[in-house]
Amino acid sequence: MGNYKLICKCGNAKRGEFHTVHGVIQTPVFMNVGTAAAIKGGVSTTDLKEIGTQVELSNTYHLHVRPGDKVVKQLGGLHKFMNWDRPILTDSGGFQVFSLASLRKIKEEGVSFNSHVDGRKIFMGPEESMQIQSNLASTIAMAFDECPSSRAERDYIKNSVERTTRWLKRCKTEMARLNSLEDTINKNQMLFGINQGGVFPDIRIEHAKQITELELDGYAIGGLAVGETHEEMYDIIEKVMPSLPVEKPTYLMGVGTPENILEAVDRGVDFFDCVYPSRNGRHGNAYTNHGKMTLTNAKFELDDRPIDSNCGCPACKNYTRAYIRHLLKAGEMLGMRLLVLHNLYFYNHLMEEIRLAIEEGRYQEYKKNKIEAMRNGEE
Amino acid sequence: MGNYKLICKCGNAKRGEFHTVHGVIQTPVFMNVGTAAAIKGGVSTTDLKEIGTQVELSNTYHLHVRPGDKVVKQLGGLHKFMNWDRPILTDSGGFQVFSLASLRKIKEEGVSFNSHVDGRKIFMGPEESMQIQSNLASTIAMAFDECPSSRAERDYIKNSVERTTRWLKRCKTEMARLNSLEDTINKNQMLFGINQGGVFPDIRIEHAKQITELELDGYAIGGLAVGETHEEMYDIIEKVMPSLPVEKPTYLMGVGTPENILEAVDRGVDFFDCVYPSRNGRHGNAYTNHGKMTLTNAKFELDDRPIDSNCGCPACKNYTRAYIRHLLKAGEMLGMRLLVLHNLYFYNHLMEEIRLAIEEGRYQEYKKNKIEAMRNGEE
Repeated sequence: MGNYKLICKCGNAKRGEFHTVHGVIQTPVFMNVGTAAAIKGGVSTTDLKEIGTQVELSNTYHLHVRPGDKVVKQLGGLHKFMNWDRPILTDSGGFQVFSLASLRKIKEEGVSFNSHVDGRKIFMGPEESMQIQSNLASTIAMAFDECPSSRAERDYIKNSVERTTRWLKRCKTEMARLNSLEDTINKNQMLFGINQGGVFPDIRIEHAKQITELELDGYAIGGLAVGETHEEMYDIIEKVMPSLPVEKPTYLMGVGTPENILEAVDRGVDFFDCVYPSRNGRHGNAYTNHGKMTLTNAKFELDDRPIDSNCGCPACKNYTRAYIRHLLKAGEMLGMRLLVLHNLYFYNHLMEEIRLAIEEGRYQEYKKNKIEAMRNGEE
Repeated sequence: MGNYKLICKCGNAKRGEFHTVHGVIQTPVFMNVGTAAAIKGGVSTTDLKEIGTQVELSNTYHLHVRPGDKVVKQLGGLHKFMNWDRPILTDSGGFQVFSLASLRKIKEEGVSFNSHVDGRKIFMGPEESMQIQSNLASTIAMAFDECPSSRAERDYIKNSVERTTRWLKRCKTEMARLNSLEDTINKNQMLFGINQGGVFPDIRIEHAKQITELELDGYAIGGLAVGETHEEMYDIIEKVMPSLPVEKPTYLMGVGTPENILEAVDRGVDFFDCVYPSRNGRHGNAYTNHGKMTLTNAKFELDDRPIDSNCGCPACKNYTRAYIRHLLKAGEMLGMRLLVLHNLYFYNHLMEEIRLAIEEGRYQEYKKNKIEAMRNGEE
C-alpha cells in the first residue's frame, strides 16, 4: 500500500498525490464520469486529455449489461477499449442496482435484479462485483455495498451497514484472489471501501473505524447527496472524517456542485465525481466563475463573447454565446458537446485552483471568495 | 471574374483551382454540409480543419428561419458566427422551400410558404434569397431556382425552367446591387447559376446555353439525384456539360455516393455536396475503400481493428470497431460523432486521391480500380 502521499494541509484541506499503475493522481481531484465507457455529449478520451482530465470513471453495472465485462476483458480491458492510459475508477454496480434495476431481492449472498436494458435476471454480490471490475481492469475498484434509501429507518440502516461490512471483507478477499490470477489484466487493481450509515453520525463513525482496520487503498463516503440538505451532508463529512485515515485518500461519492466540492475539500476530501457538469451541459447550462448560465436564454442571441473570456476550454477558445445558443435552439449535438467540454474543463480547472490554494496556504480565503463570486450570478 | 484556373484535364476530368476571398479551393472538391451552421453529429469547425474540409456548405432556408439571417449579419456573418475562415457556399433556399415547407404558392415574384419550424408565413423570391445570402456573407451564393418534381411533365418543366432563367437574371442584378452597398459584409460574394430541365436533354442544353451567356462565377447542375436512375443522371451530365463553360467551375448539387462522384468527375464536374457521409455516419454506417460497413453488426463485437487501418481520421487513429459498435448500441453520441468524422474524412480524402490521379494522368484507371474495390464489399 502506501500509494497516497500527503503533500501538505491547509486547515483540514489535504493536498495529496496518489500513485497508481496508470500514473499519479494529483488530489483533490474531480473524476469525469463516462458511464458506459464514454462521456455523454459526444466527448472522447482524446478530448479528455485536452480538458485536463486526470481520472475517468465508468459504471460497472452499465458495462456488465452492455457490452458485457467479458467482452471488455477480451478486448484488453477498459483502458484499451476506450483508448485511455490514465487512471480509471469503476464503481461497484451497487448504486445502479439499487436505483436503476427493477425487482430487486437482497440476500446475504448479494442482490438479484432485472437488467434495465433487456429485463434479463442478474445476480450480483461482492464476488461478482469484484470479478466484473477485474475483467474491466480499472485502476481502482469500489467495494460492493448497499445504498439504502435516504428515508430508511435507523434499524434498517444499522443492519444494512453491518452487511456492507461483511460484504467489504468478501470484496477484499476476492480482489486479492483475482489479482493473483495469471490472466488478470490489472494485477495491481486497488480497492476502496465505502462508508455508509445514512445521516446517523454514530453508525457512520463506528463503520468508518471498522473499515479502516481493513487497511484498504482508499475510503469513500457513500450514501450522501441523496436527498439530505447540504448542511446535513457537511455535518456528516465533518463527523466521519476523523475516523478515516488521513494517510489514505478519501472519496465523496457523487458530489456535487462546485460549492459542495469546495466545502468538502475544506473537510479533507480528496476524490470527487458527479454527473452535474455533463448533464447540465447537455441541458444547456454552463458553469462559470459567476454562477451558472442558461445558454438558451434570449439575452444571449446577439452575445458575441465566449461563455467565459478567461476560460481556456475548446468552446471558449473558439465559439460565442450566440453561436452556442443557436446550436442548442436548433437541436444540434454540437451545442451539447461544447457545453459538456466547457463544464468538465471548468470542474477540472477548479480542482487545479483548489490544489494551488492549498499548497499556498490560502485555501479558506480562496474558498470564501470563489463561493461569493459564484453566488453573485451571471456576468 | 476569372476566378477559376484549369490546371489540367485527364479525359473530361478537370483539375482546377478556384480563387475566393476566403482562400483557394482545389477542385474537384466535396463540400461538407453544415445545414444550420453546424455539421450534424457534434462536429465543429475546428474538427473540419482536422479532417481536411475545404468548403463548408450551409442552408439559407434553415438559417433564415433560425437564428435569422439578420442575427447572423449582426454577428459579423457566417464565417465569424461559425468561426470558419475558409470558403462557405450557401444554397438559395429554393430546394428546401420546395421540399420542406408546406402550403407553397409559386408566382412570378417568388414563393409564399410556411416555415417548417413555427408555421410563420414567409415570402422568398430571387431578391429575398440574394438578400439573405448577402446577410449570411457566404463566399459563394446560389441562384434562386425552382426545383420541380422529378415526375413533372415536360410542359411543366419547360415553363419552370424559363421562370428559373428570369429569376437568375434578377439574382444577378440584386447581387450586384448588394455587393455595392456600404454595409455588406462580403462585397466579393460570388453567384453560381443553376441548370434545370429534369431529364429532358434538349431543355437542359438550351437552358445551359442561356445561363452561360450571363457570365456567372460558376454553374451548377440542379434537380438531379431526385429519383432518376444513376444511368439517367450520368447521361444528363454528359449531355449538358459541353454547353457549360469549361473555364468555369461546375457543381453537381446534392450528389452523392463515392461512385456517383467518381463518375461525375469523369464527366468534368468540380464541386459536390451531399448529406450521405454525415447522415450515414449518424445511422452507424462507415464508408471504406471496401464499401460501406454497418458498425452495429454483431460481427464487430470483438473486432479490435480500426474501421480502416489505412485511414488517418480521428476515429481510426484512436478507436476500434468494437468500441464504436458499443457506443452505437449504447446510444452514446460519441459513436455518431466518430462515424461522421470518419465519413467526412473519407470523402475529403477521396477528393484528394481524385485530384492527384487527374494530375498524374491516370484518372480512368484510378476510377475503375476504386469502384471495383468498393463494390467488392467489406474487408
